[in-house]
Amino acid sequence: MQTLIELGKQAKQAERQLAQATTPQKNEALELMAEGLLASSEEIISENQKDTEAAKQNGISDSLLDRLTLTSERIEAMAQGLRDIAKLPDPVGLVDSMWTNEAGLKIGRQSVPLGVIGIIYEARPNVTSDAAGLCFKSGNVVILRGGKEAFHSNKAIVTSLRSALEKSSLPIDAIQLLEDTSRKTAREMMQLNRYLDVLIPRGGANLIKAVVENATVPVIETGTGNCHVYVDQSSQLDMARDIVVNAKTDRPSVCNAAETLLVHKDKAEEFLPVLEEALAPWKVELRADDKAAGFLKQSVPATETDWETEFLDYILAVKVVSSLDEALDHINRYSTGHSEAIVTNDYFAGQRFHREVDSAAVYVNASTRFTDGFEFGFGAEIGISTQKLHARGPMGLPELTSSKYIVFGDGQIR
Amino acid sequence: MQTLIELGKQAKQAERQLAQATTPQKNEALELMAEGLLASSEEIISENQKDTEAAKQNGISDSLLDRLTLTSERIEAMAQGLRDIAKLPDPVGLVDSMWTNEAGLKIGRQSVPLGVIGIIYEARPNVTSDAAGLCFKSGNVVILRGGKEAFHSNKAIVTSLRSALEKSSLPIDAIQLLEDTSRKTAREMMQLNRYLDVLIPRGGANLIKAVVENATVPVIETGTGNCHVYVDQSSQLDMARDIVVNAKTDRPSVCNAAETLLVHKDKAEEFLPVLEEALAPWKVELRADDKAAGFLKQSVPATETDWETEFLDYILAVKVVSSLDEALDHINRYSTGHSEAIVTNDYFAGQRFHREVDSAAVYVNASTRFTDGFEFGFGAEIGISTQKLHARGPMGLPELTSSKYIVFGDGQIR
Repeated sequence: MQTLIELGKQAKQAERQLAQATTPQKNEALELMAEGLLASSEEIISENQKDTEAAKQNGISDSLLDRLTLTSERIEAMAQGLRDIAKLPDPVGLVDSMWTNEAGLKIGRQSVPLGVIGIIYEARPNVTSDAAGLCFKSGNVVILRGGKEAFHSNKAIVTSLRSALEKSSLPIDAIQLLEDTSRKTAREMMQLNRYLDVLIPRGGANLIKAVVENATVPVIETGTGNCHVYVDQSSQLDMARDIVVNAKTDRPSVCNAAETLLVHKDKAEEFLPVLEEALAPWKVELRADDKAAGFLKQSVPATETDWETEFLDYILAVKVVSSLDEALDHINRYSTGHSEAIVTNDYFAGQRFHREVDSAAVYVNASTRFTDGFEFGFGAEIGISTQKLHARGPMGLPELTSSKYIVFGDGQIR
Repeated sequence: MQTLIELGKQAKQAERQLAQATTPQKNEALELMAEGLLASSEEIISENQKDTEAAKQNGISDSLLDRLTLTSERIEAMAQGLRDIAKLPDPVGLVDSMWTNEAGLKIGRQSVPLGVIGIIYEARPNVTSDAAGLCFKSGNVVILRGGKEAFHSNKAIVTSLRSALEKSSLPIDAIQLLEDTSRKTAREMMQLNRYLDVLIPRGGANLIKAVVENATVPVIETGTGNCHVYVDQSSQLDMARDIVVNAKTDRPSVCNAAETLLVHKDKAEEFLPVLEEALAPWKVELRADDKAAGFLKQSVPATETDWETEFLDYILAVKVVSSLDEALDHINRYSTGHSEAIVTNDYFAGQRFHREVDSAAVYVNASTRFTDGFEFGFGAEIGISTQKLHARGPMGLPELTSSKYIVFGDGQIR
């Protein structure tokens, strides 16, 4: 088992060659990886069974077990994912602006890979090929550190990807897996500034928090979403109902699901009973403030903690507000800055919501569920940034690049 | 004296109002600040004298004393700096792309302020008004933490700026100074994630290192420049001499000055004696490898440490290399990723240098001294980023913004 330092050294050696790879070289390697995954499907599934059996013995929940399980269909989807990445435009080498300065230098800003990216993630083994493919296409070496629950699956997937690279013209160490899944090496990885340019954690709130608190390597914080929907005084009943139902129930375990509903006081009496009925099939628990509770058949009293919580479950906090201002104050106080929506007929309410809500994605009359790299049309997603530095919102391939200035002179000095 | 937490709370209160300020509001306030600085010039100078006297008693070096000293001319320059910032385009509110996704949502990416920026800096008090002006124009609240050597100067400057804000339509707490200059509060500031969105250290290598190692707030690393000039086999003698002399001697204490010269073996015999003579007026100490020493009248042997060191002085490390490849290897091994230059007549050598050197600014036939926000034509500079995340190279006003997605729907759900 190689140490993290050894992986880091190998990554640095692969970095320069990968950064200069041509688009066809990278796409051919991605195709080889896709073929490789399909060819080793049986082996990956049999290794995956070691993980799922251990998980069952440890009494893992059904939903987590489902996320962990690989089937031939899921491996086909992973392979297709790599082929889709191959089809996306190469984000590297784009000179997005070039000008001549006063001294006559031509100065161009060109996109370049970030370098070596560390990904720390949890149970879903499909992240392994996904993240590897996105980093690879953007010319970045990746060091993957998956959770121990998926160790055998991740190892089988990375072995397959590296075998494919061996057949390609690009360095095998472009994709590496940290096999030591102890907490100690995770901490080491967070401070591996010498070898890592960026660290992207993908997982639950605790993982993200641990990385933000301990990392000295620059981090892109992803994924915590305490998302709000505000139903304004002048909103269409059906539209408001459909958006709230979709934002809450379409897939409650993901970060762009709504967690808190705010309703204008003049709309609450009409809207809340309609909503309650619409949510009934999913048995959504409503945690309501006093005013909202007055319009609901069944609810539990909301506590301060409920306003702060990303439930990731069929639970919705509900509050009646007396104005758009109160809604904005509530959102800017409790939101994690992921996605928020207003449902309104009022042009100026929409304008203010767009302007004053400080979140990565701010919606007027649409579900928060659209905050997603694929839905946005990026064709890919490495995560959803909830920080303001570097990238904010869904991150596709361009967000995995940096830039450098290339300068053409004729002997200029200052 | 207010605590850091109190400053943080005030910053958060000012943040929303400042983020929505119009361009004229911000520009008027900047003009008031410029007038205010001029009006309080005498008082600032008298407070500055407290700092310079204490510095003299502590035996500060002449060059540091010069940096610390404020004169009426320097205060005029600070005021002019604020007026220049007022003239620059507002970086906030720009929607650089907007498209319609498959669901029919119009999605636009709009520039927004980063939020609250912390600046930790060292002795030069003019950074106070400079950084405050740039953060302010880009809609960011700033918490300044200057060095204790400049405490009285910084306090007088910030008092003047805040008095100007009091006359403006914008919140006075948009600009705040942390008066407690102890190390303890600097550490606290590095971990003030609740109130700070970004931390920008400006100063020497030790300060930057301390911030990178201790901060949990996202950091933009600035300013360490171990810059290289490589004189290729086929280069023009005069051009090579002028570029190396300029890069080394124009202002050796700044980060874009050259620290190491690499010379192709077939050029060394012709070039090095010419360069030695040209550098003589500045008494530049040449720390040479064995081969280079053979062509120099006077040099001291270079050690491994010399290749790694940002001298910031009239010292130049000199190495003879046998090929462009060796030059590239040396640079990518020892460089801090700031600025590097090749002097060459060879088109393909220039192409390779641009492509294979992994630094913020890569020059063909020009001095490294051009890496600067003003020289690049940005009209401003908050620092020069040597990291790959968020911004790389000289950072102007646009680099002090983030983005958010504003989405226009018609009731879309997934």
